[in-house]
Amino acid sequence: MKLVCSKANLLNGVQTVSKAVPNKTTMSILECILIDATKGFITLTANDMELGIETTIEGEILEKGIIALDAKIFLEIVRKLPDNNITIQTDSSYKAIITCEKAKFNILGKSGEDFSYLPLIEREYSISVSQFTLKEVIRQTIFSISDNDNNKLMTGELFDINDNELKVVSLDGHRISIRKIELKDSYEPKKVVVPGKTLNEVSKILPGDTESDVYIFFTPNHIVFEFGYTTVVSRLIEGEYFKIDQMLSSDYETKIRINKKELLNCIDRATLLVKEGDKKPIIINITDENMELKINSIVGSMNEDIDIEKNGKDLMIGFNPKFLIDALRVIDDEEVDLYMVNPKAPCFIKDADETYIYLVLPVNFTTVS
Amino acid sequence: MKLVCSKANLLNGVQTVSKAVPNKTTMSILECILIDATKGFITLTANDMELGIETTIEGEILEKGIIALDAKIFLEIVRKLPDNNITIQTDSSYKAIITCEKAKFNILGKSGEDFSYLPLIEREYSISVSQFTLKEVIRQTIFSISDNDNNKLMTGELFDINDNELKVVSLDGHRISIRKIELKDSYEPKKVVVPGKTLNEVSKILPGDTESDVYIFFTPNHIVFEFGYTTVVSRLIEGEYFKIDQMLSSDYETKIRINKKELLNCIDRATLLVKEGDKKPIIINITDENMELKINSIVGSMNEDIDIEKNGKDLMIGFNPKFLIDALRVIDDEEVDLYMVNPKAPCFIKDADETYIYLVLPVNFTTVS
Repeated sequence: MKLVCSKANLLNGVQTVSKAVPNKTTMSILECILIDATKGFITLTANDMELGIETTIEGEILEKGIIALDAKIFLEIVRKLPDNNITIQTDSSYKAIITCEKAKFNILGKSGEDFSYLPLIEREYSISVSQFTLKEVIRQTIFSISDNDNNKLMTGELFDINDNELKVVSLDGHRISIRKIELKDSYEPKKVVVPGKTLNEVSKILPGDTESDVYIFFTPNHIVFEFGYTTVVSRLIEGEYFKIDQMLSSDYETKIRINKKELLNCIDRATLLVKEGDKKPIIINITDENMELKINSIVGSMNEDIDIEKNGKDLMIGFNPKFLIDALRVIDDEEVDLYMVNPKAPCFIKDADETYIYLVLPVNFTTVS
Repeated sequence: MKLVCSKANLLNGVQTVSKAVPNKTTMSILECILIDATKGFITLTANDMELGIETTIEGEILEKGIIALDAKIFLEIVRKLPDNNITIQTDSSYKAIITCEKAKFNILGKSGEDFSYLPLIEREYSISVSQFTLKEVIRQTIFSISDNDNNKLMTGELFDINDNELKVVSLDGHRISIRKIELKDSYEPKKVVVPGKTLNEVSKILPGDTESDVYIFFTPNHIVFEFGYTTVVSRLIEGEYFKIDQMLSSDYETKIRINKKELLNCIDRATLLVKEGDKKPIIINITDENMELKINSIVGSMNEDIDIEKNGKDLMIGFNPKFLIDALRVIDDEEVDLYMVNPKAPCFIKDADETYIYLVLPVNFTTVS
């Protein structure tokens, strides 16, 4: 095989597919990137069997061929070569020579035959959203998946398509994040659970363009994201997702409207008194037009008042400050509405149209303060 | 005690003195910053017994007093408070109340009586250099001190003052870094060894202004750096520094002139084949007008040619690539001169006036390649 391509193209391609290279594996072929120049174009592929990424890069094929190269070394080499054309040449014994200007690297590759190609997916059912929208919706929900493998479904996000709406849901047992996106077309109902890892990686490699679309295909076992010259294929998580509708309620006893940045900064300040892992709640005391936040720990105590608009009853309620911070950080509105019932019922942060709903369970503070 | 000062002033002061707070100590008073408002001004002090930093900040003293506050917590609180005036109030039981706008923190301080003040230094002998110059000279030499405590003198830098010249030297047994600075005045000869940790911290808190000076005072056991409203006092390392003059020589058999950036990038590329801790040398083969660099490791091999101007004999010599990279990174010249004798003698990188001299010992490569 012999091919020539620009450093910029090659680096971009290698960085993209590297996201599917597993950190730890006993199968050394999975640590490789496959360079396939057997057809008229150059494709790079990496595949950890759960998640696979393939991308096509521009370049000139001087001699057709195929090789698998160690992803980490190959990425480092490409990254550190001068900003010029890079030539990759291999022989029948899988020796690869990578040259750029006067620099010449020799590394040993592997046969492409052992490489696991991406599964062939029949592209029947697909939806499209802008790259920007998909990247945003992942950022706005991914923090509340669980990293505990005991309940596989909690490690993924529900993609729930209904007519012209895509609803994305994540939950970890203490909170639920819901975002709704209006689609340009109407689609058949479809519910799948996408692994959190896949969404994290997709979000990293998505350029995030508002003008360009991502096409999302579904099969019974896989989801496919296509954008630009890149294809991401991931297994779905099997099983039926949690029935979240019955956890949501629009009844409330206390509703407050508050400046988001002020609330976020205040909670952020309060948490500096709490060490990581220490489960000190922040206590919120809502009275007319005023909300007092306070926290007590072995280090000291802190309290602060914030102006609010209140509807309904006075209330004292405690929260894990991290859960409030996580939700507030991804809300772009200047003012947010919090809906509460009592100190033991969930608090909802949501906008009037419910394009976002963040449910946070309160914590018991009478026993800890 | 009760005082008011702006967040910006307080934060700057606390960050400055925090550099002298030890990470680990069994004496909890050393983890504190002393706020002294007993006289007409507010001083902050931290002191780990080796290194002490004191700074005076602007502010209003409403009630004189003194308190020691945990440095980490206090810094975090100040950092996260709104950008406005901060009030610190303490009572006779060392409770401190820190307020800013509507936020109010309560933490428990300590009596200032147990605090170790900075040693009183008679300011007799002093030199002055610009803040920029001192910051630069530390950066350009600090990398070749040793972090091995077995030889205390190697963990510091020699400050050698002679007439109107300050020579700064560091060495670790494999290499020597020397920088010479012309002083504005002439001074009595003076040689001291300053702890590397002190220089690292001074370099971090020095604003690096070209227009403002640092005044450096010496006593038999201490060095003092004074700049702005800040004073840094450090113990000196005792003992006689290495006689470096006899290690320097101006004889050479091979001299090359080379583009610094090209050489640096090339060595940087080569090292990606070498894992941390792996002692693979880079081998340099100097012939007429060409220098070939090559490296072999279990991962693969790399070689590259660079144009040079050569005087003297051809030479093949091996180096620890890190030592060349460290020296080249802090040289600002576009072209550098390397002087060598044979594969077992040190290589010198120096300019014509010897304002800098970097000595690097070669490594044996015949046994490893």
